[in-house]
Amino acid sequence: MFKKVGLIALSTGLVLSGVGLSTADAAKKDASQGKQNGNKAVENVIYMIPDGFGANHAANYRIFKGEEAVWDTHIKGMYTTFSANADITDSAAAGTAMSAGIKTNNGVIGFDPEGNKVKTILEASEEAGKSSGLVATSTITHATPASFASHVEHRSNETEIARQYIQESGVDVILGGGKNNFLPTSKGGKQTELNLIDEAQEKGFEFVETREQLQQVKKVNVEKGEKLLGLFAGEALAPEFDRVDTEEPSLAEMTEKAIDTLNQDKDGFFLMVEGSQIDWAGESNDAAYAMHETKAFEEAVQEAIEFAKEDGNTLVVVAGDHETGGISVGSSSSSNTTADVLKNVTATGEFMASQLNADRSNVKEVVLQYTGIELTDAEVATVQQAEDAKSAINKVISERAGIGWTRYGHTAAQVPVFAFGPKSDKFVGFHDNTDLPQIMKDAMKLK
Amino acid sequence: MFKKVGLIALSTGLVLSGVGLSTADAAKKDASQGKQNGNKAVENVIYMIPDGFGANHAANYRIFKGEEAVWDTHIKGMYTTFSANADITDSAAAGTAMSAGIKTNNGVIGFDPEGNKVKTILEASEEAGKSSGLVATSTITHATPASFASHVEHRSNETEIARQYIQESGVDVILGGGKNNFLPTSKGGKQTELNLIDEAQEKGFEFVETREQLQQVKKVNVEKGEKLLGLFAGEALAPEFDRVDTEEPSLAEMTEKAIDTLNQDKDGFFLMVEGSQIDWAGESNDAAYAMHETKAFEEAVQEAIEFAKEDGNTLVVVAGDHETGGISVGSSSSSNTTADVLKNVTATGEFMASQLNADRSNVKEVVLQYTGIELTDAEVATVQQAEDAKSAINKVISERAGIGWTRYGHTAAQVPVFAFGPKSDKFVGFHDNTDLPQIMKDAMKLK
Repeated sequence: MFKKVGLIALSTGLVLSGVGLSTADAAKKDASQGKQNGNKAVENVIYMIPDGFGANHAANYRIFKGEEAVWDTHIKGMYTTFSANADITDSAAAGTAMSAGIKTNNGVIGFDPEGNKVKTILEASEEAGKSSGLVATSTITHATPASFASHVEHRSNETEIARQYIQESGVDVILGGGKNNFLPTSKGGKQTELNLIDEAQEKGFEFVETREQLQQVKKVNVEKGEKLLGLFAGEALAPEFDRVDTEEPSLAEMTEKAIDTLNQDKDGFFLMVEGSQIDWAGESNDAAYAMHETKAFEEAVQEAIEFAKEDGNTLVVVAGDHETGGISVGSSSSSNTTADVLKNVTATGEFMASQLNADRSNVKEVVLQYTGIELTDAEVATVQQAEDAKSAINKVISERAGIGWTRYGHTAAQVPVFAFGPKSDKFVGFHDNTDLPQIMKDAMKLK
Repeated sequence: MFKKVGLIALSTGLVLSGVGLSTADAAKKDASQGKQNGNKAVENVIYMIPDGFGANHAANYRIFKGEEAVWDTHIKGMYTTFSANADITDSAAAGTAMSAGIKTNNGVIGFDPEGNKVKTILEASEEAGKSSGLVATSTITHATPASFASHVEHRSNETEIARQYIQESGVDVILGGGKNNFLPTSKGGKQTELNLIDEAQEKGFEFVETREQLQQVKKVNVEKGEKLLGLFAGEALAPEFDRVDTEEPSLAEMTEKAIDTLNQDKDGFFLMVEGSQIDWAGESNDAAYAMHETKAFEEAVQEAIEFAKEDGNTLVVVAGDHETGGISVGSSSSSNTTADVLKNVTATGEFMASQLNADRSNVKEVVLQYTGIELTDAEVATVQQAEDAKSAINKVISERAGIGWTRYGHTAAQVPVFAFGPKSDKFVGFHDNTDLPQIMKDAMKLK
């Protein structure tokens, strides 16, 4: 395993010119290193947020993949993530820091700790005449996307966030889960009276709810005030494992469509894309779920980078909002890293636990079916005797992958920032999460 | 706690001009950011290696200290550490990669996997007429320093490493522990016949063995071929906790003396300084030991940076050889980071365990005496019932500090590189550990 990674790491050490970049194309190479475009404002920013993704996730993912990820060579620095009232941030305070450049209390979206509304980078982009978009695999009203286009005292008020998206924000493209937050209770939704999907359509949104419908969208013209709302599940989209045969699009497909749509605006665009469920995998210490969600996120980043390479005036930033799980690259029992064994896993630990019979006598069969891993008798006994079968399965699989965890929750790790395109060199060094939107604003020359 | 760190992080976000650097001094500011000196060769390199130090160590140390460490703002990138035959490196293969720029097998020092001797950056510096030095708090013949000035098939052959230092290498300043490896068995040492201390003195080394003697060294003139050998303990120096009242110098004191001595060479110098015991603390999952060793290492880095600021043509690089312990910034039980509680700890977990009586009835008193922490009845019971009292004490204290661990050993985490001074910008980005000496050689224009 390591040999494969090793050779790649060594060879790429010599060609730091950007993933898939033609070395002959010197101008674009300079752009990829942030050295070009002089004083010209960056036209587009694509802000890719892998929720809960730290440096050790990056290292494990490289082993899982067997080669470098598209972001690895674009690392520019690291930053701190604490919130106004806690060492360990939640995704609301982190999202607000990353969107508006201020520290707020955990749970709060778009307000400072004194309750003053703060302007987000998406809103500043809109004011400058740019189009904007939000893409996520959670409910699109979840804390991270919400922090860019809404203002609520607590993240749990997702119906209010949905209302603000449609009635108040200028956001042009909304793609993700969470349809229930847009519909009235009479339609099975959570709004008391509003039907925000109807209202959105009246306001010029095209509405889609399946992968096929999304692919067929062709006529949305943001220059003419047309918009796009895609809600592909009542709540969150399914984990990457389970989305294969559903009507839900992949994160990469949503990202591609968002870029194609927003790119019609001659003033440029701001797009936020979240890999939402890397965080949830971390909270369950589910290594396979984390790696497969990271893979889906990488495919979305690849879309963004390919666009940025073609465009030449687009800045792509990849930055987690915090680390989740205290993941390490070395478990308690294994002295090698074997994250590649997770490649064949096709279900979360939670799903596998749900497939166990009452006396858990079928542990070995279930785990083999969904992971390809044949548990030892000792591992089977561990799962059978555990208080919580899900956690026990996740622990056994993580040990097999040489991955350790220290908590079922967020941590205060400093996390890496990766950037590609013009002005990407502005991210070099040590930062706080509040610095990120400021660097982007400066790059786009926004007020 | 977080507020304090928070304010500092925010304010330093605005002044990225280097620790303690006068902003008025624009030329030196540029130098600190690696943007100055054009095509001029860097004269001196100080390579500071905190053994076993990863990004999460940096985050925990910032909380422990209550403000940024001297290295934080100088982060330039991250790099991989795998060896030729293992995903998780040992310090010999890591040291050889970091000194000679090649991958070798775990345990091997100064040879490639085929057994060919490889030239180290210290040797290349010597060939270019520079002076050189090694400083460590382990035996000075331990794997990391050994990788710069010796060639042995296995790191365990420390007497042979000592022989090569004195009889074959050109190293001018040697400061650390490990006197036993230089003395014959007749003098209580481990050499079969050689007395390398006598031999060193015959060859022009001044020999010292106490802190006071080191401070009084004044006449060593490397330009005239004079050298300095300081061996302050038979084996490793004591942990930082215990060195206060001994005759052993601090790492900072050894570093300062090494720089003063080597700086007499008008051709410049190469100096390697290791914070050796951060790794050992990680291998015991002893959070307090890790933080106090990091503090001692930071004081040494401060010496190097102060010299580099004055000198203007010295590159300081801070780079761990691998991560140890799978440390995280968030333990299983605590949702806050409280590493500052470790400030009052004055002994390792190992030492505290040695102070327990046979039935461990004095756990509460011992832990209170050496940590200032009053254990709960549940924590006392945990230590009393544990198979291994040392590990149990370390676990309880780590939980109190909000620090998690995943293994008693090295991990394959990617680790951060920090650099200060001319050419420091060459470390920006994603690297492999083998890239580091090449960047330094290029900076010094060595062959």
